[in-house]
Amino acid sequence: MLQGANEILAALGDDAVTFDEDVIEHHGRSDWSTSNTTVRPVAVVYPRDTEDVATIAKTCSKFNIPIVPFGAGSSVEGNFSSPHSGICVDFTHMDAVIAFRPEDMDVTVQPGVNWVDLNNKIAESGLFLPLDPSPTAQIGGMVATNCSGTNAMRYGTMKDWVVNLTVVLADGQVIKTRRRPRKTSAGYNLTSLFVGAEGTLGMVTEVTLKLAPIPQDTSVAIVSFPSIKEAATAASSIIRSGIQLAALEMMDDLQMQVVNRHGSAAVRKRKWLEEPTLFLKFSGTTDAIKSDVKRVGQLVKAHNPRDFIFAKSESEKTDLWAARKEALFTMVNTRPEGTEIWSTDVAVPLSRLADIIDITKQDCSKLGLFASIVGHVGDANFHTAMFYDPKNAEQKAAVSKVVHVMMDRALEMEGTVSGEHAIGIGKKDSLVDELGLETIDLMRTLKMSVDPKWLMNPGKVFDLPRKK
Amino acid sequence: MLQGANEILAALGDDAVTFDEDVIEHHGRSDWSTSNTTVRPVAVVYPRDTEDVATIAKTCSKFNIPIVPFGAGSSVEGNFSSPHSGICVDFTHMDAVIAFRPEDMDVTVQPGVNWVDLNNKIAESGLFLPLDPSPTAQIGGMVATNCSGTNAMRYGTMKDWVVNLTVVLADGQVIKTRRRPRKTSAGYNLTSLFVGAEGTLGMVTEVTLKLAPIPQDTSVAIVSFPSIKEAATAASSIIRSGIQLAALEMMDDLQMQVVNRHGSAAVRKRKWLEEPTLFLKFSGTTDAIKSDVKRVGQLVKAHNPRDFIFAKSESEKTDLWAARKEALFTMVNTRPEGTEIWSTDVAVPLSRLADIIDITKQDCSKLGLFASIVGHVGDANFHTAMFYDPKNAEQKAAVSKVVHVMMDRALEMEGTVSGEHAIGIGKKDSLVDELGLETIDLMRTLKMSVDPKWLMNPGKVFDLPRKK
Repeated sequence: MLQGANEILAALGDDAVTFDEDVIEHHGRSDWSTSNTTVRPVAVVYPRDTEDVATIAKTCSKFNIPIVPFGAGSSVEGNFSSPHSGICVDFTHMDAVIAFRPEDMDVTVQPGVNWVDLNNKIAESGLFLPLDPSPTAQIGGMVATNCSGTNAMRYGTMKDWVVNLTVVLADGQVIKTRRRPRKTSAGYNLTSLFVGAEGTLGMVTEVTLKLAPIPQDTSVAIVSFPSIKEAATAASSIIRSGIQLAALEMMDDLQMQVVNRHGSAAVRKRKWLEEPTLFLKFSGTTDAIKSDVKRVGQLVKAHNPRDFIFAKSESEKTDLWAARKEALFTMVNTRPEGTEIWSTDVAVPLSRLADIIDITKQDCSKLGLFASIVGHVGDANFHTAMFYDPKNAEQKAAVSKVVHVMMDRALEMEGTVSGEHAIGIGKKDSLVDELGLETIDLMRTLKMSVDPKWLMNPGKVFDLPRKK
Repeated sequence: MLQGANEILAALGDDAVTFDEDVIEHHGRSDWSTSNTTVRPVAVVYPRDTEDVATIAKTCSKFNIPIVPFGAGSSVEGNFSSPHSGICVDFTHMDAVIAFRPEDMDVTVQPGVNWVDLNNKIAESGLFLPLDPSPTAQIGGMVATNCSGTNAMRYGTMKDWVVNLTVVLADGQVIKTRRRPRKTSAGYNLTSLFVGAEGTLGMVTEVTLKLAPIPQDTSVAIVSFPSIKEAATAASSIIRSGIQLAALEMMDDLQMQVVNRHGSAAVRKRKWLEEPTLFLKFSGTTDAIKSDVKRVGQLVKAHNPRDFIFAKSESEKTDLWAARKEALFTMVNTRPEGTEIWSTDVAVPLSRLADIIDITKQDCSKLGLFASIVGHVGDANFHTAMFYDPKNAEQKAAVSKVVHVMMDRALEMEGTVSGEHAIGIGKKDSLVDELGLETIDLMRTLKMSVDPKWLMNPGKVFDLPRKK
C-alpha cells in the first residue's frame, strides 16, 4: 500500500499526500459515528481535479489498494471508515464552483463544496439548492448518501437534484452520466445509480445540480400535543390533506426541555411547552401561506393541540425555526460528560408513523438515558439520538438493542432501516434483512461488474459475494 | 425458438400462448412508431403473475430466446419491436390492482394496469398518480420508458413515483427493489436503474407507486404570442419566477389551426387565435391560484401577449385544457391521407429552449409538410410531429434530417435526444452521440452482468459490446 501511496505522491506532488498520524486518525474515525473501526488508511491524498482522481484510481488499481472517499466526515454509519485500510481520498481541495448558470437554474460544482457556502454564494440570483442535511455536509457526501433533511417533504432527496455526475471508475476511467437536460429518458439512469452508492461504484468528481427558486415568502408555525402519538397522528392528517408544506418536523418533550434550558439566546426568549411539538414551515406566495396556515389550524384541532403559534414577524419566524435547527447540536453540546451519541433513523409507510414513534419513544425512555426523538415526519422518517457511556458495555448493548428493535419494527411495517444516513458499515446486516439476499446479490453483481477487484470503499453497504 | 414457445405453452396453458399471425403482426409494429423492423416474434405469451413471467424467463434463458415485453404498444421509438425475433411477453392479463393503501398514499399494481383506469378507480380517495402520458399507456411501459407528460413540471417523471418494483431477471430470478418507505437511502437505487431501462435489464411484474393528493382546486389560462420565440421566452420567465404551475404547455400556430378546424365540439365553441399559444394549468388552494394567475399575467406582459384568457368556470377550464389534450390525436385524425407520423422529442437546458424551438419550427416549415411543434415547455422539453408519405423516400429522408438536426442541436446545447420517449431502436446512434462510448460501455457492462446472454429486449437502447 505504501508503494502505491508513494507513486501517487510522485504523480500529484508532496502537498497532495500525507502520512501524518493525526490526520489519518481524523480521517479514520468520528465522534458522530457508531461504526468506527480500529483499522486506519495508510495515507490521505488530496486531489485537485478529475485527472488527479483518475491517477489515484489507476494507481490503486495497479497495487490493489482500497480507496475510501472522504468529504466532510459528518456521516454517522462509518461510511468513510477504512476497515480494509487503503488510501483515503479527501476532496477538501476540490471545492470549486465550476459553472453557475442562473438562466438554466443549475450549477456545476466539485464534490468538496459545502452546501451552505454554495447557497450563500448564489443567494442573490434568487435560486437555491433545497436540500438541508447537516450544515457541515459537502456535495460529494450528500451524493454518496442520498442525503435529505428538513426540506425533503417538499423538495425530495439528493437524487432529485442531481442532473449529472462525472465519475472516476475503479480502473481510472472517467465517465459522465448525462448532459444537462432538466428531464430525460435517454438510456439507463446511471446518475441515480451512483447517488446513494456511498462511493462503492466510483468516485464522483463533478456534480451538476438543479436549483429551485427561493420561495417568495416563508413562515413558521409550531403546535404542541399531549402525547407523541397525537403529534404524529396530527402530522399524518396534515400530509394526507395535500397542503404543500415546505417542512413538517417533530421534536419530543425532552428536546423541547433541552431547548428551554440550553437553546441559543434567540430561542430562549420564549418559554417553550415541554411537550411533543410539530414545527411547520410554509412557503410560497404570501396569500397562499395565509390560506395554508388556516387549513392546518383547522386540521390539527381534532388531535388536542395545546397551542398553535404562528410567527408574526420575520424575526419570530427565524427564532421559531432555530429551535428545530439547533436541536441536535444543543443536545450534543449539553450531553452528560463522557457520553457518545448513537444517532440513527428509519422511515416507514405513512400510516405506521405514529405507532413506531410512540413505541420507540417508550423504549428510549426505559433506557434511563439522555435520549430523544426528532422527526422529519413529513416523510414518515424520524431519528433517535441516544447518549451512552462508551466504556459501559451493558449500556452500549442496551442502546444497540433499542436501535435494532426499531429497525426490525420499521421492516415489519414495510419501511427502511435508513431514511437518510445510508448504510455504511453500521447497517449492513439490517440491509440484508430489509431487502433479502437475492436483491443484495444483484447489487453485488452490479458492483463486481464495474469494480471487479472490490477496491471502491470496500466493506460498505454490503460485503463480498457469498462463496457459492 | 418454437421449442421454447411450446415449452412455455405446456407450462402456462393453451390460453397463454398464441402463434396467430395477426396477433404477432400487431405486436411487431405500430403506426405510431418510426422504427418498425421487418422481423417478428415467433409467439406472443400472456403471463398472469410473477411466477408465469419467471417461467417464461427461465425457458427463454434455457433456449437462448430473446424476450420482448409489450404493454399498450403506444411507444414510438420501436421500443417493443423484435429485431432479433424471440418471444413477445404481453402483460394484458396482468392488470390487477394488488393493494391500494390510501392511508399510506400508495398503490401496488401489475404492469398491465392503464393509468387512466387506475386514477378513475381511486378517485374517490382524493388521491391520484400525477403522470400524464398517452391515455392508452400502461404502468409497465411507463416504467420502462420513464414517461412523463404535461404534469412533469410540477410532479416530475415516472422515476419520482415508483416506490418499489418486483422484477424478473433474465435467468428467472425474482427480486424486489425496496419495501415501501416514502424515503430511503438504503443501498443502491435499483428502482431507478430499472425505470427507463426499457425492459433490457429485467421484466417488471409488480409496481408500487406513490400517490399525490388531488389539488383542492385547479384552473387554466391561455395566452398567445406573435412568435414562437416570444412564447418560449415568456415560458422561460414564468419558470424562472418560481410560480408553481401544475403544467406549462405550448402549441404552435398550426396546432391552433387544427384545433379551430377539427377540434371537438367543446373546443370549437371558441375561436382560437392561430398563433403560438401557452397553456397554463394552475393548481393548489383557490386563494393561491388567484394570486399565481395575477403574477403570471404581469410576467408575460413583457413578451407581447395577444390575449390572456383565464377560465371563469369549471366547464371553461375543461374546454380550454381539452384543446391541449386532444391536439396530437386531432392532428393524427386529420392528417393527409396515406401519411404516417414521425413523432419525436428532445429536451434542453432552460435558457436554450426558445432558440431551439424557433429554429426547429423554421426547419419544419421549410419541409412543406403537415408538421407542428407542441411542447412541455415547463420542462424545456418539446415534441415535433411531422406527417410524411412513407412511400416517398425523399420525403422520409427530409423528415429524418429535420429530426436528426434537431437532436444534434439539442446535444450542442447540452440537452438530450429523448425527453420522454426513451431510446428504443430509433435513437440508439444518437444516444452514443449524447453520452459517448465510455458511458454507453458502462451501461453495457451493467447489462452484461445481469443478462449475460443478452436476451432481455435485445437491440434496444444500445447494441452488443464492441469487440475489443
